[in-house]
Amino acid sequence: MRQISLLGCLALVFLPAIGFGAAPEARTQTPPRFSVSSSPQLTATARRIIEAARQSGLRPWNKLADLCDRVGPRPSGSAGYAHGVEWALEELQAAGFVNVHKEPVLVDGWKRGREELSVLSPGGVQKLPVTTLGRSVGTPPEGISAPAIVVRDFEELQRRGADVRGKIVVFNAVMKTQENMFASYGETVPYRWNGASIAGRLGAVAVLVRSLTTARDRHPHAGSMGYEAGVTKIPAAAIAIEDAEMLERLDRNGSPPLVKLVLGATTGPQVTDYNIIGELPGREHPEEIVVIGAHFDSWDAACGAQDDAGGSVLAIEAARLLKRLELTPRRTVRIVLFANEERGLAGGRTYARDHQKEIAQHVAAVESDAGLFHPAAFTVAAGAGGAGQLEPLQELLSPLGKVQIRAGGTGPDISPLTEAGVPGINFRTESRNYFDFHHSPIDTADKVDPGPFNDCLAAFSLMTWALAENPGRLPRSVVPPSEED
Amino acid sequence: MRQISLLGCLALVFLPAIGFGAAPEARTQTPPRFSVSSSPQLTATARRIIEAARQSGLRPWNKLADLCDRVGPRPSGSAGYAHGVEWALEELQAAGFVNVHKEPVLVDGWKRGREELSVLSPGGVQKLPVTTLGRSVGTPPEGISAPAIVVRDFEELQRRGADVRGKIVVFNAVMKTQENMFASYGETVPYRWNGASIAGRLGAVAVLVRSLTTARDRHPHAGSMGYEAGVTKIPAAAIAIEDAEMLERLDRNGSPPLVKLVLGATTGPQVTDYNIIGELPGREHPEEIVVIGAHFDSWDAACGAQDDAGGSVLAIEAARLLKRLELTPRRTVRIVLFANEERGLAGGRTYARDHQKEIAQHVAAVESDAGLFHPAAFTVAAGAGGAGQLEPLQELLSPLGKVQIRAGGTGPDISPLTEAGVPGINFRTESRNYFDFHHSPIDTADKVDPGPFNDCLAAFSLMTWALAENPGRLPRSVVPPSEED
Repeated sequence: MRQISLLGCLALVFLPAIGFGAAPEARTQTPPRFSVSSSPQLTATARRIIEAARQSGLRPWNKLADLCDRVGPRPSGSAGYAHGVEWALEELQAAGFVNVHKEPVLVDGWKRGREELSVLSPGGVQKLPVTTLGRSVGTPPEGISAPAIVVRDFEELQRRGADVRGKIVVFNAVMKTQENMFASYGETVPYRWNGASIAGRLGAVAVLVRSLTTARDRHPHAGSMGYEAGVTKIPAAAIAIEDAEMLERLDRNGSPPLVKLVLGATTGPQVTDYNIIGELPGREHPEEIVVIGAHFDSWDAACGAQDDAGGSVLAIEAARLLKRLELTPRRTVRIVLFANEERGLAGGRTYARDHQKEIAQHVAAVESDAGLFHPAAFTVAAGAGGAGQLEPLQELLSPLGKVQIRAGGTGPDISPLTEAGVPGINFRTESRNYFDFHHSPIDTADKVDPGPFNDCLAAFSLMTWALAENPGRLPRSVVPPSEED
Repeated sequence: MRQISLLGCLALVFLPAIGFGAAPEARTQTPPRFSVSSSPQLTATARRIIEAARQSGLRPWNKLADLCDRVGPRPSGSAGYAHGVEWALEELQAAGFVNVHKEPVLVDGWKRGREELSVLSPGGVQKLPVTTLGRSVGTPPEGISAPAIVVRDFEELQRRGADVRGKIVVFNAVMKTQENMFASYGETVPYRWNGASIAGRLGAVAVLVRSLTTARDRHPHAGSMGYEAGVTKIPAAAIAIEDAEMLERLDRNGSPPLVKLVLGATTGPQVTDYNIIGELPGREHPEEIVVIGAHFDSWDAACGAQDDAGGSVLAIEAARLLKRLELTPRRTVRIVLFANEERGLAGGRTYARDHQKEIAQHVAAVESDAGLFHPAAFTVAAGAGGAGQLEPLQELLSPLGKVQIRAGGTGPDISPLTEAGVPGINFRTESRNYFDFHHSPIDTADKVDPGPFNDCLAAFSLMTWALAENPGRLPRSVVPPSEED
């Protein structure tokens, strides 16, 4: 799909760890694997970073709580996001980073509006919690009242296709519990994303999607959707697991529920949000950049502590940790807090577009957008052998337990960079409980545990240091990267 | 506090289990302990009841789901409650019970109305989930905006008493995790119940109470409150654990939050709800009554599956089970589904008042209002030795695990009966998770597990049979009964 850049080819050199701190001429040597066992210096630095991070106590968590408590939810295009931008700029300046600034990002003018869902019959009127899917159209002001038809999957929808016209389709697709919950997410997210288009084509008048979670806390989980070209746009909203099951029972028991949905969602003109940037300048090649980042927007029912206020704080704190330890790396570490990941990825796309001229100097990009549980992995989207070259870092990360380094998807916000050749490294944490919090009102500061959070800081800081310090470079990304592996 | 009634004295006779099915003249014997070991007949009957209940499969659960799905929330004075009454009368009639009818209960005309809570500063405006406490006054239509002061307990409130005037007091009292969560509830419920009066006396303008739960699911839990005579009535609402902690952090960190509360609660004229009654008539002493019951009202954000749709279904299903097994007991089993437990106990009080003439014929009353987890205990509020006389049932209940029978509190709805001398027996289940669901939007049908639910049915049915069949009677209640031990 993509061509490897000239610089990408030249950049296949990735020096062994023994090269950490080595003279630039080391670059001309044959590029062996990224071997750390032979470098007492790197091993010592890694230990220092890990120890310092783990001894951070409540400091990183307090920063997260400060963002959550004093700013709160930061949905795209909101006063909350704007307020968050001020918070982040102050933080970056106070920490002594340079080139602290914000860069405009145009985001859609979508607004949630009024939300009401009721079961009108059989029996008494019941109000159910509901949340409009991001970018959905609204209903007429009086709402849509229609019988619901409940299906488990697209196949059942097609089978019952003749019954769909004029109905509200409820997708009761069950998110599977398994070790890698991101895989479960990948399997069920099409109902949220494409459900309205697919049901709309069969004549449905709205869709209600079972939330992508396994938590039975009666919260609908937010999330974006899209419309395929040419379909009639029908409103789409998420409901709680419990209510999807209830509607299914009524449907299966021969009492198909009559449902009323009122969504006041509107899409106005585009709005300006901002990516937020700050730098720890490199000591030797300040023009070479390692981006470390996360998305700074959240959904609107909580501050998004796990998704992704925590990742944002992690990026800031990782750079601050290196600074505090006086570990000024060879290259510039650029913190980028991205706008609009949750509702269109405009922040990531705009950054890649606006920094096109310096893409070649982007040596790598690291993102954290998978929660702040125990560190689990870094997945590497780079050219052939890239993941293997980073693999020896596993040994240095071992005080944190097993942290895998393997080929895999890049992060969402850095995916436009990876598409442009920049090796993308996606930080992953133990995912068992992540979707309990994901896009939900419960994603509050207390859900981030300071212990694992500090371990995440250790892992993220060490990866940042390795990429910014090692004279060699990872091979440029060549494969079409995917957000999730 | 109370005098023992003459009938209570006469009724101290409680025959041994060997008396099950024995001739009435056995009543003249000296009353020994309720001994079951010597009665193969009772043992066999007990086994039959337990086996049949455990083999009920999904039948009881389906009844519960039907009530939850087709009726939904049943708060006092609502269309939902009225709809529930129709459901219950139909159920009782369809099951073939006799004397099926409803009895009017006057309940307060309290209505929740609009609910909005925002943190205005420091930082951005954040909306927080909130639920008005039952019977609270509302705010002026424009709401109340005031700085919040956050305290952990009444002692801290008194210590900071000089700072309270003009403030919104947040009670961030932590519910302790322990084996008997009802004890924790007892320790923290005074903040919900009396907080407004105590803070109001110090000049507070409103109170926000941390929800009485340990579940971090960002739901405020409903519940009733009261005003002490003579205090200025200030509005009271519950907030989620997470938000109580957030407000505390802001207060402690020197950024006392400015909070805006809008509650549209109103109290109109009284409304008529109904207790619902049905009977399995006794074969030998139909004039003697064993009440089995639960409250049929719920809070308004869910159907109240654990609290107490499940208890209501349990009472119906227990009587139905005896009927199905053709175990028509000596006495009448009267199912009573009580109105208004959650908001004033008017159902229980009205029943005791309206049935005053037949109180002496009420041999016992059993209630389930502590969830439908694994059966844990029956607490017995009866005259001296009453619990001991029932204790041998423990052995018969042993296939269900350890189900204690011990002296303790009566049930809430039957407490007016117990105050009038009727031995009150309160069914208790394992309470560890009960308050996750209690008065919360998550208290939906799926939260009741069919296995333990059938075990509850087994225990409840056996107790019902024992009380209705045994020729002897428990000693009348003489101590001031308490709702919880």
